[in-house]
Amino acid sequence: MKTLKERILKDGRVLDGNILKVDSFINHQVDYKLMDDIGDEIHRRFLDCKVDKVLTIETSGIPAAYSVARKFDVPFVFAKKKVSGNIGDDLYSTEVFSYTKSCLYNVVVSKKYLTQGENVLVVDDFLANGQAALGMIDLVEQSGANVVGVVALIEKAFQDGGNILREKGYRLEALASIEKMDVEGIKIK
Amino acid sequence: MKTLKERILKDGRVLDGNILKVDSFINHQVDYKLMDDIGDEIHRRFLDCKVDKVLTIETSGIPAAYSVARKFDVPFVFAKKKVSGNIGDDLYSTEVFSYTKSCLYNVVVSKKYLTQGENVLVVDDFLANGQAALGMIDLVEQSGANVVGVVALIEKAFQDGGNILREKGYRLEALASIEKMDVEGIKIK
Repeated sequence: MKTLKERILKDGRVLDGNILKVDSFINHQVDYKLMDDIGDEIHRRFLDCKVDKVLTIETSGIPAAYSVARKFDVPFVFAKKKVSGNIGDDLYSTEVFSYTKSCLYNVVVSKKYLTQGENVLVVDDFLANGQAALGMIDLVEQSGANVVGVVALIEKAFQDGGNILREKGYRLEALASIEKMDVEGIKIK
Repeated sequence: MKTLKERILKDGRVLDGNILKVDSFINHQVDYKLMDDIGDEIHRRFLDCKVDKVLTIETSGIPAAYSVARKFDVPFVFAKKKVSGNIGDDLYSTEVFSYTKSCLYNVVVSKKYLTQGENVLVVDDFLANGQAALGMIDLVEQSGANVVGVVALIEKAFQDGGNILREKGYRLEALASIEKMDVEGIKIK
């Protein structure tokens, strides 16, 4: 997606530890126009599919999930990162390891919001090692719903996640795929 | 806001401990159409104001912040609930006590995303004791920006938050104000 790639090259910053900061337009301050365009682009790429629901994981995937849910005219669901007292017991749950935070956490979705036979599009801001995406896929499949595809706004293509998902047979769409990044610059495929 | 009130009466559920569950349409599964309408309504209520930015707090305020930011044609920012390694040191920070989770946490915003003189509209899903709203107001005022007003999608009017904010002179708009709720039902003003 041209506008996203250009924006990453213009405003993205690379920090130590393979961290790409896009917090001026995606995951702290959000450019709503870019996010609207992201919804349009994801919708365009999955126009051949029936999508009944969009699933993301809190927090940074929520704007993109909202944007694409609007285009498909379906609800979106955000999986929660731990069992909160407010969610209730009737949950699908999976464990996800965060390399960024070096910790294992639970990701949960209420059983009411994933239904057998539904076609679910999985959306997240970043795809690196694929842990969060695999966790969301696990939640969808526990429910008997179908994973239509996985969307990453930004794939770190030098990490394993993309290949793992493709090898497992999931359709993956990355709107911007980072081939290489270091303090000297960012190279996008 | 009529549609929101009707939806709360139809799909909201009251749990022990003054918890109103709206997780089928606001804060776990999200009805994007309702959220679009919420953006329209907030925009309508603040049409007399100059709004340069919308501020919310992760996670559940994000869809409403996106929706109203689109209407005002401005960026939105979501404050983060703790210092993550990815945010950087240059933060405005405040402490907020969560009665729901019985814990004190830090709420932070990068200093880059709140600027002196900006007019900031504060948005959140719930207003109960006002802690989260007061935390966001503190962040805005640390930066020298102005609080245009505070919006709660749902105010629990039987708790203190609304009165505290009004007594401090902030303009508060609640789209649905819950007068009373118990296991027998919900009464909206």
